[in-house]
Amino acid sequence: MSDFWTPRVRCLDPYVPGEQPQDQQYIKLNTNENPYPPSPAVAKALKACDSARLRLYPDPESTALRAELARRFRLDPAQVFVGNGSDEVLAQAFQAFFQRPEPLFFPAISYSFYPVYCRLYGIEARPLPLRGDFEIDTDDYRGECGGVILPNPNAPTGRLLPLDAIERLCRQQPQRVVIVDEAYIDFGGDSAAALLPRHPNLLVIQTFSKSRSLAGLRLGYALGSTELIEGLNRVKNSFNSYPVDSLAQIAAVASLQDEAWFDDCRQRIIATRERCAEALGRLGFRVLPSAANFLFARPPGGNAGELYRTLKARGILLRHFATPELDAWLRITIGTDDDMERLLDSLAELLD
Amino acid sequence: MSDFWTPRVRCLDPYVPGEQPQDQQYIKLNTNENPYPPSPAVAKALKACDSARLRLYPDPESTALRAELARRFRLDPAQVFVGNGSDEVLAQAFQAFFQRPEPLFFPAISYSFYPVYCRLYGIEARPLPLRGDFEIDTDDYRGECGGVILPNPNAPTGRLLPLDAIERLCRQQPQRVVIVDEAYIDFGGDSAAALLPRHPNLLVIQTFSKSRSLAGLRLGYALGSTELIEGLNRVKNSFNSYPVDSLAQIAAVASLQDEAWFDDCRQRIIATRERCAEALGRLGFRVLPSAANFLFARPPGGNAGELYRTLKARGILLRHFATPELDAWLRITIGTDDDMERLLDSLAELLD
Repeated sequence: MSDFWTPRVRCLDPYVPGEQPQDQQYIKLNTNENPYPPSPAVAKALKACDSARLRLYPDPESTALRAELARRFRLDPAQVFVGNGSDEVLAQAFQAFFQRPEPLFFPAISYSFYPVYCRLYGIEARPLPLRGDFEIDTDDYRGECGGVILPNPNAPTGRLLPLDAIERLCRQQPQRVVIVDEAYIDFGGDSAAALLPRHPNLLVIQTFSKSRSLAGLRLGYALGSTELIEGLNRVKNSFNSYPVDSLAQIAAVASLQDEAWFDDCRQRIIATRERCAEALGRLGFRVLPSAANFLFARPPGGNAGELYRTLKARGILLRHFATPELDAWLRITIGTDDDMERLLDSLAELLD
Repeated sequence: MSDFWTPRVRCLDPYVPGEQPQDQQYIKLNTNENPYPPSPAVAKALKACDSARLRLYPDPESTALRAELARRFRLDPAQVFVGNGSDEVLAQAFQAFFQRPEPLFFPAISYSFYPVYCRLYGIEARPLPLRGDFEIDTDDYRGECGGVILPNPNAPTGRLLPLDAIERLCRQQPQRVVIVDEAYIDFGGDSAAALLPRHPNLLVIQTFSKSRSLAGLRLGYALGSTELIEGLNRVKNSFNSYPVDSLAQIAAVASLQDEAWFDDCRQRIIATRERCAEALGRLGFRVLPSAANFLFARPPGGNAGELYRTLKARGILLRHFATPELDAWLRITIGTDDDMERLLDSLAELLD
């Protein structure tokens, strides 16, 4: 603690991302990265860049990228906001819409960055318990609040809410913004973007980090009514006029233009996930149904923490959350078929 | 105005960056970009990147880049913070150190983003008038405050404070953080980084956008005591764990390793600036002494706004601030010798 820090900064409890060890090569199944490279069109577009152009600021409006996203989602470009990764987009949305006297509703088990943003912006957090089998009940999200946020599919459980449940949330809170954080939607869900024409209070946030294999370039975006996007732009332009660099803008456009690659990668990941879920079941794991690029699974015996450590020592990284509700579970990112086979072999051996 | 926006967002008055017109080719002397490309080592490092690696998150700590900066400034890596452009670093520093009940001191004429950050974070702004010839008098920065920030050299004036004046500011406010925003320091000033061993309340912020020709990649950094850097890390890790993308980290390291290129570019810009200042003087301009990559100059007759518009129509972009104090002045970025010759020719013709 330092006297130079403001009172709020002293109270922060910063987010701890999954390990990114630089010491050795792991089979990295801990941060939900995509096992496949981005589209070859990305490599080609980046190689074609003239680095002399980097002397100039990027387009502060990311015009070409927003136009491409608008086309993909059949929206107006004024309904699209882009930022330096979806974490930044989320942070700015918290500031634009949730910094209010009333508490923010979100599932008690969800993305652990949400309570961190609440502390950063002085927002009262109201985490709402899940029901049996980690299910979200939309009835719990009635009543006075400053807004609603939830991941769909949820993290780290992978469970998906159908669109009618999302629509119910929007209808229950017409005066407040409802954010659906769709980082994993491309692995098996329907995007709430389809609901945007009917719900001006709905904001959908997606990322290039997972289904588009561009975690290294930091690209996220929000889709919503023009008034919500204008609110985000007011915050962005009071923080950093140029959040998305020139190379990231170019790579993102190239990625969006190769739908075949995108579809192929996500179909492969979905197929691997389903095979892996069955195999884990045969090993005695309890596996939640997942619509994401990860599985949330409870090993037989329940000693997930020890299993995590043993696997790490063998060069396989999973994610383990050492909290009372999640301590018995492991979150397993879906890698290549080879990655998963090596994991399953190790598990079979360790559980024998 | 939308009811979905929080009260604070409704009160924002976002920053307006210099124009980045995409419609035609301009001689762009309006946003203080470097006229020379980044080091060829940057191009080489980027070409060598395997874009398949972009599927992985970047190093969240920017370890290699911070080590390289630490070496350059003879600091410990724990004294270095990096962010997505120096605007982001500034924003996070405002939040980490200035969000207090007392007002923030800064020069009334300086970087126009400072009052914008104040609104974003609910900080009372106390802009302090400059003295004759746009000079900063450190005596004005005594008294109770939440912190002090100033650009050195100042923008848009280009005027430089010597290090003993910076040291006086640090001594006058030992309980508060003093930020020196050195975006332009490489064009003729001494960095306050030399004062860091004696002043734990001093934070020095620099950028790769100007002297290193990497505005397109968004890279800024702060240098300070470990307790100040830890405060910044608490904010960063409550906002976005991975602010600097993989390609930007690689390019920045390559840039730092080519000191010869860096020195050559800035010496050329300084030489062009001095020649241009003399030529403007001959045309009847009043030109302030500048230690930056721009000149602040008052055209004869004082109709700077009209001159700005006429030059824009001719394909030459300067920056004009339409405020009562600055309305008679133009800020002219130093381009190549060719750029400046074309500007001077146009001016000679227009003023004839």
